[in-house]
Amino acid sequence: MTTERAIAIAARVEDFVRTQIFPYESDPRRDHHGAPTDELVYEMREKARAAGVLPPHILPDGTHLTQRETATVLIASGLSPLGPLACNTMAPDEGNMYLIGHVASDDLKQRFLKPLVEGRARSAFFMTEPATMQGAGSDPSMMITTCRRDGNHWVVNGKKRFITGAQGAQVGIIMAKSEEEDSHGGACMFLVDLPDPAIRIDYVPNTIDTSMPGSHANVTIDNLRIPADQLLGQAGDGFKYAQVRLSPARLSHCMRWLGCCIRAQEIASDYANRRMAFGKLLIDHEGVGFMLAENMIELQQAQLMIDWCAGVLDTGSLGTVESSMAKVAVSEALMRIADRCVQVMGGTGVTDETVVEQIFREVRAFRIYDGPTEVHKWSLAKKIKRRWKEAHG
Amino acid sequence: MTTERAIAIAARVEDFVRTQIFPYESDPRRDHHGAPTDELVYEMREKARAAGVLPPHILPDGTHLTQRETATVLIASGLSPLGPLACNTMAPDEGNMYLIGHVASDDLKQRFLKPLVEGRARSAFFMTEPATMQGAGSDPSMMITTCRRDGNHWVVNGKKRFITGAQGAQVGIIMAKSEEEDSHGGACMFLVDLPDPAIRIDYVPNTIDTSMPGSHANVTIDNLRIPADQLLGQAGDGFKYAQVRLSPARLSHCMRWLGCCIRAQEIASDYANRRMAFGKLLIDHEGVGFMLAENMIELQQAQLMIDWCAGVLDTGSLGTVESSMAKVAVSEALMRIADRCVQVMGGTGVTDETVVEQIFREVRAFRIYDGPTEVHKWSLAKKIKRRWKEAHG
Amino acid sequence: MTTERAIAIAARVEDFVRTQIFPYESDPRRDHHGAPTDELVYEMREKARAAGVLPPHILPDGTHLTQRETATVLIASGLSPLGPLACNTMAPDEGNMYLIGHVASDDLKQRFLKPLVEGRARSAFFMTEPATMQGAGSDPSMMITTCRRDGNHWVVNGKKRFITGAQGAQVGIIMAKSEEEDSHGGACMFLVDLPDPAIRIDYVPNTIDTSMPGSHANVTIDNLRIPADQLLGQAGDGFKYAQVRLSPARLSHCMRWLGCCIRAQEIASDYANRRMAFGKLLIDHEGVGFMLAENMIELQQAQLMIDWCAGVLDTGSLGTVESSMAKVAVSEALMRIADRCVQVMGGTGVTDETVVEQIFREVRAFRIYDGPTEVHKWSLAKKIKRRWKEAHG
Amino acid sequence: MTTERAIAIAARVEDFVRTQIFPYESDPRRDHHGAPTDELVYEMREKARAAGVLPPHILPDGTHLTQRETATVLIASGLSPLGPLACNTMAPDEGNMYLIGHVASDDLKQRFLKPLVEGRARSAFFMTEPATMQGAGSDPSMMITTCRRDGNHWVVNGKKRFITGAQGAQVGIIMAKSEEEDSHGGACMFLVDLPDPAIRIDYVPNTIDTSMPGSHANVTIDNLRIPADQLLGQAGDGFKYAQVRLSPARLSHCMRWLGCCIRAQEIASDYANRRMAFGKLLIDHEGVGFMLAENMIELQQAQLMIDWCAGVLDTGSLGTVESSMAKVAVSEALMRIADRCVQVMGGTGVTDETVVEQIFREVRAFRIYDGPTEVHKWSLAKKIKRRWKEAHG
Repeated sequence: MTTERAIAIAARVEDFVRTQIFPYESDPRRDHHGAPTDELVYEMREKARAAGVLPPHILPDGTHLTQRETATVLIASGLSPLGPLACNTMAPDEGNMYLIGHVASDDLKQRFLKPLVEGRARSAFFMTEPATMQGAGSDPSMMITTCRRDGNHWVVNGKKRFITGAQGAQVGIIMAKSEEEDSHGGACMFLVDLPDPAIRIDYVPNTIDTSMPGSHANVTIDNLRIPADQLLGQAGDGFKYAQVRLSPARLSHCMRWLGCCIRAQEIASDYANRRMAFGKLLIDHEGVGFMLAENMIELQQAQLMIDWCAGVLDTGSLGTVESSMAKVAVSEALMRIADRCVQVMGGTGVTDETVVEQIFREVRAFRIYDGPTEVHKWSLAKKIKRRWKEAHG
Repeated sequence: MTTERAIAIAARVEDFVRTQIFPYESDPRRDHHGAPTDELVYEMREKARAAGVLPPHILPDGTHLTQRETATVLIASGLSPLGPLACNTMAPDEGNMYLIGHVASDDLKQRFLKPLVEGRARSAFFMTEPATMQGAGSDPSMMITTCRRDGNHWVVNGKKRFITGAQGAQVGIIMAKSEEEDSHGGACMFLVDLPDPAIRIDYVPNTIDTSMPGSHANVTIDNLRIPADQLLGQAGDGFKYAQVRLSPARLSHCMRWLGCCIRAQEIASDYANRRMAFGKLLIDHEGVGFMLAENMIELQQAQLMIDWCAGVLDTGSLGTVESSMAKVAVSEALMRIADRCVQVMGGTGVTDETVVEQIFREVRAFRIYDGPTEVHKWSLAKKIKRRWKEAHG
Repeated sequence: MTTERAIAIAARVEDFVRTQIFPYESDPRRDHHGAPTDELVYEMREKARAAGVLPPHILPDGTHLTQRETATVLIASGLSPLGPLACNTMAPDEGNMYLIGHVASDDLKQRFLKPLVEGRARSAFFMTEPATMQGAGSDPSMMITTCRRDGNHWVVNGKKRFITGAQGAQVGIIMAKSEEEDSHGGACMFLVDLPDPAIRIDYVPNTIDTSMPGSHANVTIDNLRIPADQLLGQAGDGFKYAQVRLSPARLSHCMRWLGCCIRAQEIASDYANRRMAFGKLLIDHEGVGFMLAENMIELQQAQLMIDWCAGVLDTGSLGTVESSMAKVAVSEALMRIADRCVQVMGGTGVTDETVVEQIFREVRAFRIYDGPTEVHKWSLAKKIKRRWKEAHG
Repeated sequence: MTTERAIAIAARVEDFVRTQIFPYESDPRRDHHGAPTDELVYEMREKARAAGVLPPHILPDGTHLTQRETATVLIASGLSPLGPLACNTMAPDEGNMYLIGHVASDDLKQRFLKPLVEGRARSAFFMTEPATMQGAGSDPSMMITTCRRDGNHWVVNGKKRFITGAQGAQVGIIMAKSEEEDSHGGACMFLVDLPDPAIRIDYVPNTIDTSMPGSHANVTIDNLRIPADQLLGQAGDGFKYAQVRLSPARLSHCMRWLGCCIRAQEIASDYANRRMAFGKLLIDHEGVGFMLAENMIELQQAQLMIDWCAGVLDTGSLGTVESSMAKVAVSEALMRIADRCVQVMGGTGVTDETVVEQIFREVRAFRIYDGPTEVHKWSLAKKIKRRWKEAHG
């Protein structure tokens, strides 16, 4: 269950987002990919700081709320697509702060985590690679970015794809397969200052989603030299650290987008209660009312899956299976919910006159990043097979 | 959350159902509608009594487990379609015992509840009426069965439809619209001994479901005279009492059928792990593995919706909205789950070689009884409208 | 396009089925699996003979209507689940007659086809085998039933599963893998008289569908000796002949069940236009009206897919890809249609008071036999891959 | 059936679109709503003129291909979202040319139709109005834009919404409710030159779709004076003329977007045949292959619905019911198809690296314009009711 302190924080966050961030939704400061500019981001963050909700889920002593509590708070921050940016609960920073906080030494935390937690910098997580759809991220043997020692430095070379927020970030976490024998075929993670001329942003495609500053960059890493003391944790343990970040980051996407879809439902319900068609209110047409009722049910289900998975993580489990289940269930449900909200609103639903249109697009992308639905089903099927084998010797 | 005592009871129930009731699934004692005969029912109940699980959710002092605890136990009893019959957790008896336990006087409990709790009698709930789909049950002005006082008796006349278990029951709860002025247009409920020549079973249709003894009868009540002391509660309050029964009974269906679908998933998974097609195990075909993975997710969601709604009921709320949401979400999910289990098993899935085929049929009917999906969506849409109005003055 | 002669035949068939066969739907003559008894079948056939619609799609000279014309006629015969039995357009006889007519010698036709065409005998097609879901039927190397020459006879041994109508049939088509060298690893087909003590019906499971006399038997073939002149076509060409039967038989299922679902829609529409709920006709509730509108659209789509595939077959193509596409599209659409009809009718929809309940069950099974949906998708994906390879060298 | 001449034209169009228009898909000339600029449009049209495909479906003598033939040609033009703009088969011009060609006098045709047919001008259709979702367009009593005679002119006042292409158009068709008695409460249609200061573009929202030059404008008409000879047809018959345009225009959307989704399937299939994941080609994963197989089936169904409806229109029928059925079936199927293509391509699917991302967005809007799915289902349910009443007296 969530706690009173989390409910109190979430109430502050909700009030802040509703009163101070909703107006920014029509702010014209977007870059040419449609994403909020950093100017806009940092302006909103000053307001969040003043409101005492920056970041809301990390306490002054650096500890995090529990996952159950975090859910309560992050859903509230997600009532606007801009809310998590303002409150500093957005991907990839939220997950990166979590990872650094759990793995880094105090020195590295002081240098790389502090500006992130204070909301004065953005970060990027350089894991995904091009060419194969999932391949590299989850399979060390397929990762083509490599690192090797050279004196007191590591040298990294490779290519990365869909690196969210790389453009404009000050902090990078770079993952590379180690060519050193004592890494036993594992990977390393490094903390680096950005920008760096050896990390070249080749290209930033336009994407259907437009909520993340810097969008999703294609990057070439060309003889990047990193001082050895910027190695995160131990050499060869990179995939283990990626696992630490994996489930919480995946689940925090669910939380934020649930917040957005609660908002979409509010807007669509309001629309349906104010417009007439064929002689009665839209809400009085079963064709409309049933869609909103289905949303009401599926929003509840999304909330329950998030809380359940958060509870599993709070036991200390990696929650790989549970977060796969939650990711599939929540992202697919939110897509149906956002789609129905658009449909309820007719022509208005496909315009930017409300945020519903953006939410629809964001959720479409969410069904793919952090593991497409099909990849999670694939791994759940493997789990079913393993469990059967264990039970049947 | 559920409790340790509930987990302990559920473990006993599960063990009993798996070891002693599964073998009865191929027992040939079915009536000509396909339903288990009373001989079979009472034979299983003796075993349940011996195993100390009759009924498992009502304590020796007559108190019930909480709804959260009941969920844990009833899901376990539902692992076989015969389990709830054996353990005395089946509809309509389970709901009828709940209602009588909450509303009846001690005298009436002694006479009508005791044999039910002891599993020595079956009961029927005479509410639904013919002609309009939902009409009568929920709208007093449309109920055509009436009652009026005649000396120290009430006289009841009318027609009822889909009266589950009426054939073979010893206890009846009869609902009728009161023609007495002091009932203020409300309804009465009566407890009666069955069979009674004034309660004529006109016809018992074959139905797609075959789990309930006595099936679903069409009944004519013709000048039934009931002693006044068999009135349940107060005259005119019949619909209030129906509300008491409504949500818990609806939710207990969800519990039992979830148990059945957990079983169907076990059987289908076992099948998929033992059969080859096109050169590999079925489970290794994504087309099969994804279906089982979807089931894994939806079973979890069904569990969470049941627990959530049960928690609401445990606060003392009538839970009308929540049980509507749970009923729609769970029944529709279980249909998809059962359907996928059938499909995974191919030709075998549509035979009675496993209980999966029956479970598919049972769940199909469940999407209709206790309120078809569409009626619940309709009432949820009304709720959305009311909430909007309250918020917008 | 269909033709005037087909339209005229279909009109006669429709009139016959509506006036003379609909009344048989409540005839109690069913065997203990729920299937029509042969007594019932042959009684209806006498009426069809008198009405000049036995069989309606094979002309007096033994030629068949085109597939497009056949569609028009078989859909009409399918307006009742009993219609195809009465008109002799039912599986497996319809496909068996088609196969024998295309492959057999005149002598074999005279002996085995004539009584079938005259509707005086039933037949069974012994292809599917147990243990693997699809395996044997489509993959000679996996067929475990074998045949070998022994003097002027062939000797067959093996096991078959889901042999529709074997119980009660007079004519059998048996498929077996040839152990003879000059068969080059291929299969043989034989025509045999039934019953035969060497063809043992081990077990007939109950199934969710109940339209086919004799249901679906498990069979052991134990040293069955077949005179060599009962070989159908050439030794080793069995799979080629199976292909001849495959697409037309698959498509004729689509035709018949489309007829049934047109009927279900009639019944559900009639119900919705005569019943009130919550103060208005069911049809005036969008929740009901939309379901019937969706059915209206999907029935049209089913018709178009059948006509399209039939047109391809009429060009002389085997139509393997097209009949896979049609089978998936039509069977899945009919499931949704039948399901909506049940739902529109509420409690009545799950009783045998109308044939809608049976149609729902029949269509459920249809999604599996003649290739489950997933097997067809699998083979279509292979086709997409092959086409891409051809286009890209 | 389509014809050889249509097939020949379509082949020319397809070749033109593939070779000359595909390269424009990455042309940066888009306005700030994301729509192609007129400069880009007219440049492409010069190429289409040179290739002899401008417009491909209107013959030199001004006659149109049949609807069946038009389908063949418009699907080919739709292989790129830019194709219909290049070939002058795009909405709203295509429908506007059809309407003017069928209703206007020779003088008006010479003045307003000629530049459109020649592809030297764009047009807009001023029908939809704000405030109610569908209201005004289909219900004269709700149309708030009015016209009245003033000497030799008509004077028009009102508001319009979602007027596609108004920005940048040279020709307008304006619909207004007549206040003149001899119009019997009907509407008038007028042809006007654009721009006109009395037709004020208030606002052009950004929308999820970006294929239509000028996007969808909100417009105020303020004392617009139109010479009486620019009345289209007869005063009071405006809704009759709207009906003439309705079904063909609705269906031509289906044609163009089907072309786009055929393209999306090509791109996704190509992607799946070239990329590996988890050790095998994407296409060899059933999770991917099944999605492409489903697309293959649904593309065929979309084609068949279009051909069927076109055939009905070619008989001279208004085809209101059939075009509603086709619009729902096709738009909903294309959404599923486009969605699966995005999903197959993973991260790449949500970038603008291919047109798949745009096609997904366009089809989302298509489910709403020309009548949302729910409005069509509503009117089909009414039709089912009327048919039942006719059959049952």
